[in-house]
Amino acid sequence: MEKLLNFLNPDQISTNTEDLKTYGQDWTRYYQPNPKAILFPKTTEEVQKIVKWANLNKQKLVVSGGRTGLSGGAVAKDNEMVVSLEKMNQIHALNELDMTIHVEAGVITEALQQHLQEKAYLFPVDFAARGSSHIGGNISTNAGGIKVLRYGLTRDWVSSLTVVTGDGEILKLNQSLVKNATGYDFRHLFIGNEGTLGIITEAEIRFTHPHGDLQSLLLAVPDLDSVMKIFSLFRKHTSLMAFEMFTDIAMNHVAKSTGLPKPLATDAPIYLLVEVEKTTEAAEEDILKCFEVCMEQNLVVDGVMSQSAEQAKIFWRFREDITESLAFATPYKNDVSVKISNVPEFMQAIDAIYKKEYSEFEVVWFGHIGDGNLHISILKPKDMLMDDFIKKCRQSDLALFDTIKKFKGSISAEHGVGLSKKSFLNFTRSEEEIIYMKKIKKVFDPGLILNPGKMFDA
Amino acid sequence: MEKLLNFLNPDQISTNTEDLKTYGQDWTRYYQPNPKAILFPKTTEEVQKIVKWANLNKQKLVVSGGRTGLSGGAVAKDNEMVVSLEKMNQIHALNELDMTIHVEAGVITEALQQHLQEKAYLFPVDFAARGSSHIGGNISTNAGGIKVLRYGLTRDWVSSLTVVTGDGEILKLNQSLVKNATGYDFRHLFIGNEGTLGIITEAEIRFTHPHGDLQSLLLAVPDLDSVMKIFSLFRKHTSLMAFEMFTDIAMNHVAKSTGLPKPLATDAPIYLLVEVEKTTEAAEEDILKCFEVCMEQNLVVDGVMSQSAEQAKIFWRFREDITESLAFATPYKNDVSVKISNVPEFMQAIDAIYKKEYSEFEVVWFGHIGDGNLHISILKPKDMLMDDFIKKCRQSDLALFDTIKKFKGSISAEHGVGLSKKSFLNFTRSEEEIIYMKKIKKVFDPGLILNPGKMFDA
Repeated sequence: MEKLLNFLNPDQISTNTEDLKTYGQDWTRYYQPNPKAILFPKTTEEVQKIVKWANLNKQKLVVSGGRTGLSGGAVAKDNEMVVSLEKMNQIHALNELDMTIHVEAGVITEALQQHLQEKAYLFPVDFAARGSSHIGGNISTNAGGIKVLRYGLTRDWVSSLTVVTGDGEILKLNQSLVKNATGYDFRHLFIGNEGTLGIITEAEIRFTHPHGDLQSLLLAVPDLDSVMKIFSLFRKHTSLMAFEMFTDIAMNHVAKSTGLPKPLATDAPIYLLVEVEKTTEAAEEDILKCFEVCMEQNLVVDGVMSQSAEQAKIFWRFREDITESLAFATPYKNDVSVKISNVPEFMQAIDAIYKKEYSEFEVVWFGHIGDGNLHISILKPKDMLMDDFIKKCRQSDLALFDTIKKFKGSISAEHGVGLSKKSFLNFTRSEEEIIYMKKIKKVFDPGLILNPGKMFDA
Repeated sequence: MEKLLNFLNPDQISTNTEDLKTYGQDWTRYYQPNPKAILFPKTTEEVQKIVKWANLNKQKLVVSGGRTGLSGGAVAKDNEMVVSLEKMNQIHALNELDMTIHVEAGVITEALQQHLQEKAYLFPVDFAARGSSHIGGNISTNAGGIKVLRYGLTRDWVSSLTVVTGDGEILKLNQSLVKNATGYDFRHLFIGNEGTLGIITEAEIRFTHPHGDLQSLLLAVPDLDSVMKIFSLFRKHTSLMAFEMFTDIAMNHVAKSTGLPKPLATDAPIYLLVEVEKTTEAAEEDILKCFEVCMEQNLVVDGVMSQSAEQAKIFWRFREDITESLAFATPYKNDVSVKISNVPEFMQAIDAIYKKEYSEFEVVWFGHIGDGNLHISILKPKDMLMDDFIKKCRQSDLALFDTIKKFKGSISAEHGVGLSKKSFLNFTRSEEEIIYMKKIKKVFDPGLILNPGKMFDA
């Protein structure tokens, strides 16, 4: 094999059993990794050589970033070669006038965040996998996360891209221009392509100035209509950073698992964690006024504003520790979205289905209301066998996805399609769209070399 | 013809000579309009029928919005049928929770702006052609304008699109979701497609809350390096709405043509018009502080802050009346962009070329520094014949575009490619990119029915 790939050094090719297992899978654990080899290119040109070689030799490739995906998008289970970009991890000089920074695709999200923070700048795309995920992977999946309400998705921070297409051409897309009206903007086609059209090797990333001090509010809310009213109120009058919702079930699990005392005296079916920027006295007054309106209009039954950064951190634990506090019950997870205005009706419709047809399930909701993004975790009943549980959950998925289709929502808000959602792609995208997707795939990857079987069967 | 298109009413088809002339051209005036007929569909389904009929009958189509384009993108000069969307001008109900509004493609930009303003909301994409341009046309060209620095381009405000592709499929793209990770985001491919891939018939448009009071500053600046320093300063410490540059030549032409007294006592080679939001007292102090720093560090030789909305309006006339004040000399215009950080060096390089090789030309620069977008107008010398002038300008374009290529800039920042820039597309996009563009064209418009000869020769 080293002979075949003689443009790489021996240390850039691994067939070590441990490596095959590590680099052959992502955070999805339903698939058995089975790659043929792992390749570690160091330059865009080496990636190009690999892709050209793969086309000549009909060798399928799987691109590999930080492998933190949750839909099997980076799994190599069918004798593919994995192209890991982890050796392409250079952070180049930043340009303070353009407010962009040139990075290689294998730079870890947190490394870029810290690099910019040291220079008093902010890269605002942020999520739990920040310590492992690669910038290239973020772009390939258009990663979102916890600050989308304020800062948008990865798509909004990509100023230019270097891509090696499936047939081995190097494209340098958009050249970091703000205004450029010269034909189809392929940059946006490669953002979110999940490694099926090309391999993103380099990017210029936009950054911003850091935000001001933050204030957190924890609110106990009687119903979903109130949630939406509170959202509108804060969005209009404050600089909203986060607007997170979770149910009393989630709150109770966190309290139980962490031992933290519940921060509010009054119980309610829904809790909101609202985070706003308070840079000026006027902003502080507006925040207080919004809080008072919520109380006066009975939109909340109880609430508290953080008095310190420490207290805010505790509020946030009730949101951030949800996943961990549910782990004991091996939850079955979905990550879906609908239009913001459809959130209440959609949640009620799904809730009714679970209550009627799956009354043995404990279902935990939480999510980013401001993006219409809802996480649904079904807890495994103690006495149910794992296989039966998964089977039953997958059955319930059909009802969930049917309802999503009815509400014109997305079966995958952030996690992509990969392997695990591809059978359900047609619940969000029309038949015609999927046909066009397959045709676009063939334009950029005519040999069908890249990430086979992901997103759809080409 | 009425028989052939029997799914349309007679009043939806015109072959009237005046109509053929009107609907066969845009604001570009280099081309002779010569369409076969003008069609006025009223629904997406009628557009679909027209496209299917056109494919069967090998009839080329040109989509027509407000026809305010400046690159001939909406010109019908070769016996095409024009599909005017002006009868599709319904503004549907807005959704205050989603902050989106559903419109048909033929809605005029200003009509949407006013509709939202009446409800205390803002559609922030704004430019001189607002009274005629259609939302559909804005999307098809990814229109920018005077507020890009603060609010971005049209692309940033499109929540969903309804498109009839070149082979007659109706696609409903993205369904107004904020987070949707389910495959290629075709919405972004149709934004900026200049009518070559599909006909945009409906859209959901995002809107925002209006901004606060504005403050304008007019600054006289000694050199380009100071311009960039002033830009960085204001961007960091204020909420910047506009950062417009123009040269003394432009200032003098406006003063002469309008009779307005010059607002600054000291002359300088460059003037800046800076517009910032001043919502709070703290913001006002920051603005003042920036102004003081500019004076102390000799970044400006003179400057004035508007004391009233009326005075700000006068400042703005020195920027907005440039085009009109140059009209006497039938200027030859280019609209280009480079990375912000490249603006000074690029301007110096171009200036040197004009001064050396085209010393008979008076060249007027103005532009949006914050976007790297520069407008270059060459004034016709009084004693030069029009044909000679155009010929000489086109010759100078080659030097301009060569320099743009060297600086990795764009030969068309906002105006698109259309007919008039297509021979120069390769100065900004690589050969490989153009080959892929042609392939993408064939995916969505295999019959090559839509907007023939625009952007490239398919």
